[in-house]
Amino acid sequence: MKQQLHALLNPKSIAVIGASADTHKTSGRPVSYLLKHGFGGDIYPVNPKATEIQGLPCYPNIESLPQAPDVGLVLLSAKRSIEAVRSLAKLGCKAAVILASGFAEAGEDGHDLQQELKAAAGSMRLLGPNTIGLVNLSARIPLSASGALEITDLPAGHVAVVSQSGGILGALLSRAAGRGIGLSSLISTSNEVDLEVSDFIDYLVDDENTKVIALYLESIRNPQRFREVALRAREAGKPLVVFKIGRSEAGATAASSHTGALAGEDRVYDAFFRELGVIRANTFDEFLDIPAVLVTGRPLAGRRVAILTSTGGAGTLIADSLGMNHFDTPKPDADTAEKLRALQGDTPTALDRNPIDVTLAGLQPDLLRQAIRTLLKSDSYDALVVIIGSSGLAMPDLVVCAIQDCLDTNNKPVLAYVSPYAPDTLKRLNSAGIPGFCSPESCSAVLEALYFRAQPLPSTHAAPTAQLPDMTALAEGSIDEAAAKALFSQVGISVPESRVVTSREQAVHAARELGQPVVLKVLDANLLHKSDIGGVALHQTADTIGARFDQMITDVGSHVGYRPDRFLIEAMVAGGHELILGANRDALGTAILLGAGGVTAELFKDTTLCMLPDHGGLTLEQARAMMEKLTTWPLLNGYRGSVRRDIEALAQAIVNFSALVAALGERLVTSEINPLFILPEGQGVVAADAVLVLNQASAHAVTGERRYG
Amino acid sequence: MKQQLHALLNPKSIAVIGASADTHKTSGRPVSYLLKHGFGGDIYPVNPKATEIQGLPCYPNIESLPQAPDVGLVLLSAKRSIEAVRSLAKLGCKAAVILASGFAEAGEDGHDLQQELKAAAGSMRLLGPNTIGLVNLSARIPLSASGALEITDLPAGHVAVVSQSGGILGALLSRAAGRGIGLSSLISTSNEVDLEVSDFIDYLVDDENTKVIALYLESIRNPQRFREVALRAREAGKPLVVFKIGRSEAGATAASSHTGALAGEDRVYDAFFRELGVIRANTFDEFLDIPAVLVTGRPLAGRRVAILTSTGGAGTLIADSLGMNHFDTPKPDADTAEKLRALQGDTPTALDRNPIDVTLAGLQPDLLRQAIRTLLKSDSYDALVVIIGSSGLAMPDLVVCAIQDCLDTNNKPVLAYVSPYAPDTLKRLNSAGIPGFCSPESCSAVLEALYFRAQPLPSTHAAPTAQLPDMTALAEGSIDEAAAKALFSQVGISVPESRVVTSREQAVHAARELGQPVVLKVLDANLLHKSDIGGVALHQTADTIGARFDQMITDVGSHVGYRPDRFLIEAMVAGGHELILGANRDALGTAILLGAGGVTAELFKDTTLCMLPDHGGLTLEQARAMMEKLTTWPLLNGYRGSVRRDIEALAQAIVNFSALVAALGERLVTSEINPLFILPEGQGVVAADAVLVLNQASAHAVTGERRYG
Repeated sequence: MKQQLHALLNPKSIAVIGASADTHKTSGRPVSYLLKHGFGGDIYPVNPKATEIQGLPCYPNIESLPQAPDVGLVLLSAKRSIEAVRSLAKLGCKAAVILASGFAEAGEDGHDLQQELKAAAGSMRLLGPNTIGLVNLSARIPLSASGALEITDLPAGHVAVVSQSGGILGALLSRAAGRGIGLSSLISTSNEVDLEVSDFIDYLVDDENTKVIALYLESIRNPQRFREVALRAREAGKPLVVFKIGRSEAGATAASSHTGALAGEDRVYDAFFRELGVIRANTFDEFLDIPAVLVTGRPLAGRRVAILTSTGGAGTLIADSLGMNHFDTPKPDADTAEKLRALQGDTPTALDRNPIDVTLAGLQPDLLRQAIRTLLKSDSYDALVVIIGSSGLAMPDLVVCAIQDCLDTNNKPVLAYVSPYAPDTLKRLNSAGIPGFCSPESCSAVLEALYFRAQPLPSTHAAPTAQLPDMTALAEGSIDEAAAKALFSQVGISVPESRVVTSREQAVHAARELGQPVVLKVLDANLLHKSDIGGVALHQTADTIGARFDQMITDVGSHVGYRPDRFLIEAMVAGGHELILGANRDALGTAILLGAGGVTAELFKDTTLCMLPDHGGLTLEQARAMMEKLTTWPLLNGYRGSVRRDIEALAQAIVNFSALVAALGERLVTSEINPLFILPEGQGVVAADAVLVLNQASAHAVTGERRYG
Repeated sequence: MKQQLHALLNPKSIAVIGASADTHKTSGRPVSYLLKHGFGGDIYPVNPKATEIQGLPCYPNIESLPQAPDVGLVLLSAKRSIEAVRSLAKLGCKAAVILASGFAEAGEDGHDLQQELKAAAGSMRLLGPNTIGLVNLSARIPLSASGALEITDLPAGHVAVVSQSGGILGALLSRAAGRGIGLSSLISTSNEVDLEVSDFIDYLVDDENTKVIALYLESIRNPQRFREVALRAREAGKPLVVFKIGRSEAGATAASSHTGALAGEDRVYDAFFRELGVIRANTFDEFLDIPAVLVTGRPLAGRRVAILTSTGGAGTLIADSLGMNHFDTPKPDADTAEKLRALQGDTPTALDRNPIDVTLAGLQPDLLRQAIRTLLKSDSYDALVVIIGSSGLAMPDLVVCAIQDCLDTNNKPVLAYVSPYAPDTLKRLNSAGIPGFCSPESCSAVLEALYFRAQPLPSTHAAPTAQLPDMTALAEGSIDEAAAKALFSQVGISVPESRVVTSREQAVHAARELGQPVVLKVLDANLLHKSDIGGVALHQTADTIGARFDQMITDVGSHVGYRPDRFLIEAMVAGGHELILGANRDALGTAILLGAGGVTAELFKDTTLCMLPDHGGLTLEQARAMMEKLTTWPLLNGYRGSVRRDIEALAQAIVNFSALVAALGERLVTSEINPLFILPEGQGVVAADAVLVLNQASAHAVTGERRYG
């Protein structure tokens, strides 16, 4: 596959099927762009109605081509593209790019056509359909009809962009060029009938021209493979930056549990990316801003930023934005201040503050250079933002060169903020390897991205868990509360002492046996929202439970239309802090959710997600990180003199729950413990309710007895 | 004053004190800029060392000027500026602009110099010091040394900018020019020794060239005056847009109460602006984006937005950003879809969705025009975003003109989003009266600003309150809990039944009299954090209170170093929902704070602020709006079948509390009821604790008996 992908991105020969001589037409563009940008290989236009196209001999059909081209660029309509693909495959072409729309994106009929297209390709690789193509900027090979290729200079560099949207490719090419951000390749995968985003990530990790990979995503079709290639990119030191659309769709999966409703699709994506160290761009501008700074390969070791300015207002603006985003802007240490003062000569300047205002240096490149070097060398700072004011604009090269000369001082990040309107200066900066920005918020965002990038990924070596039970015999669908609790109990998560009863007499007896306030619940695997239908009664005793039992039969019966026949009687849990622990499977995998319980917490949606790795449950480290991410974490940890909770037992419960969920694998639909009561330190946790919903048992079901850790 | 301000902004004669013949020097720029931008009045350079400057006769000193100039632009050092100001004032000059720094911003000595400067000016008005000056773009009069004036064309238009930062003025001038956003005037007030931001707002409200006023603020020196001019601007239909820096400073005022800590400085600014209908820009880009759309004067009636695109990717991007920000992008209604279909002719296009993708129309201006008109006329939409893709760039005028031609269809907002890099197209759009943006987030932000602008301000006609007590006799400083509660009780806020006791015997007696669980608290006006020092004991009875009383004397005594001698015994409040109601005075005025109580809510900082108007308390409408802004509002309003709280009593309590606070006027430091228990519907509210801290009684203290409403 690598070879075919290499041929697609670096073809020596290209057939353009359906090429037009009219360069105003979309089908006239690709040949024109190949010529314009100096493609050095063979171009074979194919069109039965022409003998020559833009000076090149034109072939009437694919069969008459002089050789099998490396790539076929197919500009025909959907149906005719299928025939062309068949012919190209037959000829031995390595890959084809299909621009036509009208495939899967167009509905049912299109979906069938897309299957036909795939079948016609055989072992030949396909990009698209519905793609605008790709551009290899390193080799100056445009395989695309995007009007953005009208630009004269393709901005070659080290950022690769892979986009699931074709329409956005031209905008990114043009914006990168306009800002002086060099690209290695730009690929639109669109319908992904064959080659998908992960294939290109995998390829680009080995591409020596690519240092940063930027992904414009609509959805991830194969999360497992994405995870693999993302980790491979991480190991290779090539950051992934993603802009994900579809953020506004509610996307909560079928709410058979609170977990499902709380783990909205976009939040799951967030967790998925975060855990792989993939940087998420929050705005469209950041999608280019962040690669522009990452490509310089200068790591951020901390959050202390020096601001060097020759214009007060902009310095304050940057300091304010950094402060809002929890960066520190400490004043220069004594040694640094002394060195700066020496540079300033007799000019009285306040150097006891940051932004460091060196009005004089701003106009004298040598002084500017020395000031930059001094700040970069200072142990007080992890990064430097240099502000370019109006005065710098009169001589942009001079300022740009002064900064550029200092980049070898050390490896700390250096950004430039351009205060006036100066698109050319921004372009010059980026081209010179100095990430340049015109919005204060961009400066903060890229520093945050660098900071995130510098954090290690959590280890995924699974922690020791309790022995996992045999789950082969579990029923399909929803498991009743007693059975679910039995399972959780087997992995070491305590449950209240309980009795299953079927009659009023048994209920009274059980309450007396338990000898403390109890809760009475209807026990029916099909009833997930028991309390909504009168199926839960708290604070019962042997004296009250009889009457309550009869009432529950009436209440629940009137809702479900049959007489409930099984009930659970449990000792009530007192003095616990209420959380929710759940697991939910969606397209991206299984997410473990930990959240604050109770009504107040529900309004604040104080929850955190962590994706299950592919080989087992979460680690203790991951479990602890989840707890600490909750806004209500202080309430577990002895906030304001309140009792400290058994957070070690909670961490172990998360680990064990996740291991159980992992063992269920694809059988799991959703599971949750809500509430999970966290008792005071040393007293453990108790699962007061339990939900477990399974799919039909699959062939892959884990057969139990397996130990993770 | 209006006359002097008019002269400052529209001078017929300008003396430039300290003008230099060297245009490379800052002091050489103003004369050069006046000439360059075609100032038609008299320019008098003043410099003893020159006889001619840039072709103009130069005067050796101010005394030798041929007439009193309308404006003196003073380019001298701080000390020499004072002398120049004195001479200008003596001559009868109307206003002076002082560029020198080294005044109040430079510390104590500078502060004294600034006072000297003010004294020297007499009745002459001063702009600055430490200002970069001002530019009247409507009349092409640059009174500034900003290097940004090197640009050839000053972008005249209808947005006025007033900035407390001098350094940012050049950036804004240059950015507005670069984006084609026309300005009326640009004024840097800086140190504001005399003229301040509010003076210019007041002036600009009557300036026929100004439609929108943008304010870059560091702080508001005179909130009362700002409020007046802001409301005057609102009445005149001129929106104010503000970018406020200093957001990152913690700024919590001395935390003698929770209210003080919760009402952080920036949150108070937020409430202050919101209640005046002043639009706050969240990013520096928005500071120009929002005026650019407001200046078109097209109001937004709702949140339904049509997106017209000829490039799929960008349309989705805009729809996603709008969706994230809770705008609706409904698909075309049947009638609109039918009209669009008729335009498309035989081209099969899916018109059952929004973004509305009219690929064909994108290339044919007539069709584009008709599509725009159809969407603007549709009752399904309140606004339209037109997307300009790469294809539009080949013929920018054509697309811009097509949109421009449709602006007369009706008054709905029309924005343009430019997908590729095209600064010139953005400039052309704005110049043509079509707000153009290159970031999806800007489109959402400006629509949100338009939406906010369309909302009415809350009425500030005060609601009827209880009779206010006579407060002349209140002690200064901190008032003890019993006295504070007595006061709240007099304005109709219930407090628990209580007894003040001084001995163990009295305590036991009181507990027996109250006949229910009681709380015992130390009563001492100086102890605001009673519970932290063991001064609060809940759940006491006549049996337990004796021993607890003795222990409290020991506990509190060991903390404060004296034997506490007064105690409060109160009936405990059961079944109430816990809130905090407070008032805090800071530089901007008095903020009323309502927040969720309890530890969980404290972690989430679920609070809302409302500023007191200047003539009394809040209205019932404002009180209700505060309650409904709380995230925990559903818990008051019967969330998930829980008991509905007495929200009418709460609203009245907020009104009464705020009236009391208003009556205290400047005597108030802080006051709070924490917790305020909200009982079930019909049962009222109860203030379970009360804090009231007063300044020394001032001459302005209200003498009670006054009724608001």
